[in-house]
Amino acid sequence: MAQNIYDTPEFFAGYSQLRRSLHGLAGAPEWAAIRALLPNLHGRRVVDLGCGFGWFARWAAEQGAARVLALDLSENMLARARAETTNAAVQYKRADLESLDLPAAAFDLAYSSLTFHYIEDFARLVRTVFQALIPGGHFVFTIEHPIYMAPAAPGFVRQPDGRIIWPVNQYAVEGRRTTDWLAKGVVKQHRTLGTTLNTLIESGFIIRHVDEWSPTPEQVAAQPSLAEELERPLMVLIAAWRPAA
Amino acid sequence: MAQNIYDTPEFFAGYSQLRRSLHGLAGAPEWAAIRALLPNLHGRRVVDLGCGFGWFARWAAEQGAARVLALDLSENMLARARAETTNAAVQYKRADLESLDLPAAAFDLAYSSLTFHYIEDFARLVRTVFQALIPGGHFVFTIEHPIYMAPAAPGFVRQPDGRIIWPVNQYAVEGRRTTDWLAKGVVKQHRTLGTTLNTLIESGFIIRHVDEWSPTPEQVAAQPSLAEELERPLMVLIAAWRPAA
Repeated sequence: MAQNIYDTPEFFAGYSQLRRSLHGLAGAPEWAAIRALLPNLHGRRVVDLGCGFGWFARWAAEQGAARVLALDLSENMLARARAETTNAAVQYKRADLESLDLPAAAFDLAYSSLTFHYIEDFARLVRTVFQALIPGGHFVFTIEHPIYMAPAAPGFVRQPDGRIIWPVNQYAVEGRRTTDWLAKGVVKQHRTLGTTLNTLIESGFIIRHVDEWSPTPEQVAAQPSLAEELERPLMVLIAAWRPAA
Repeated sequence: MAQNIYDTPEFFAGYSQLRRSLHGLAGAPEWAAIRALLPNLHGRRVVDLGCGFGWFARWAAEQGAARVLALDLSENMLARARAETTNAAVQYKRADLESLDLPAAAFDLAYSSLTFHYIEDFARLVRTVFQALIPGGHFVFTIEHPIYMAPAAPGFVRQPDGRIIWPVNQYAVEGRRTTDWLAKGVVKQHRTLGTTLNTLIESGFIIRHVDEWSPTPEQVAAQPSLAEELERPLMVLIAAWRPAA
């Protein structure tokens, strides 16, 4: 079973104070870029893998999705998501993505935000998603970028010349990374971008778009702290589809 | 026109002494990984974009390729390539890849090794390659990895804890990078991996494989200096194909 760090009080309290927790999709600077990768959801069936507080699930229902199955491992997050959701198209369910089963050809879109870097057996999960999508179905997800994940000491370092650099090492050494973010001992799984893409391709997906997200000049002007995201990518947005039969 | 750094005496002299120049494909540690991405070449028509000393072109002809068109900007490299080639299937030709034209549906494989990071208008070149391949044709190339390309100061830095790190910055800032490698003022064009992949996809290619190359344990044992390639990728190997009509 995956580490359930979101249900530890320290992590949950910290996570609840993030912009993306307080302001939902609008608080996530990558949201406009994600939205550009999504199909029209009217009448579609959606599965959200790692739904958190349910911001995306509610948005999908507002877009007219026929059904949104929203899964998460965290009881705390599901409780708040349920409390804040009135749209009957959304169904929340506790699930461990490491051992997830989904019905065959049951969804038009599988979506996931910043979750898969916690998953150890990504290939199993990708196969599960592939068979759960209809032919022609979409798979859109974001993960922490492996440049962000790889380092033994993941933090900016100021150089003698005043520049900040991101200290990449161990990039080719895949596997467990333990970091302190909101709480001590958060376990993540580093995979190269190549491995993530090849895992999708080997399961039958066609890659549609790979966005190593960075802020627009307008975003940096409005929120100057985002400028450091130009130095190294924090996350990557990937769109793939199951080919039409 | 692209910078013709290979024809400057200092660069050419240095390049000629690299393992991959002295020992050909066997001197390039990524060769086994490239070879795994190549189709059977027997009877096929191949174009090699940036052929250098012609090692790959001669190898392709030895594999039974019907024709190998080997292009390079450097007169020095073409002269040595011609001098070392006896197989009549190989034709060398001077070409600037920034303004290249190729006949339509004339090749089964387009190949390029460590050349495209010198190209400013990559999208134009990709469109040229796409139309030059037959439907079902293969495009296999290597480039310097954007993690390697991006930094303002591209060199390992030893940290106080003894580890070496690769100082990534400006990753999202695409464009010109001027470095000193073999000669001063070598101009390269940094693109994110996402941009490279999306450029292929937007031209109609299907991504088959993305290998952020790293050495095998056997390679590190035989040549310990390769261990640093585990810290950050130096190059990326990409295989794509033009879908069958």
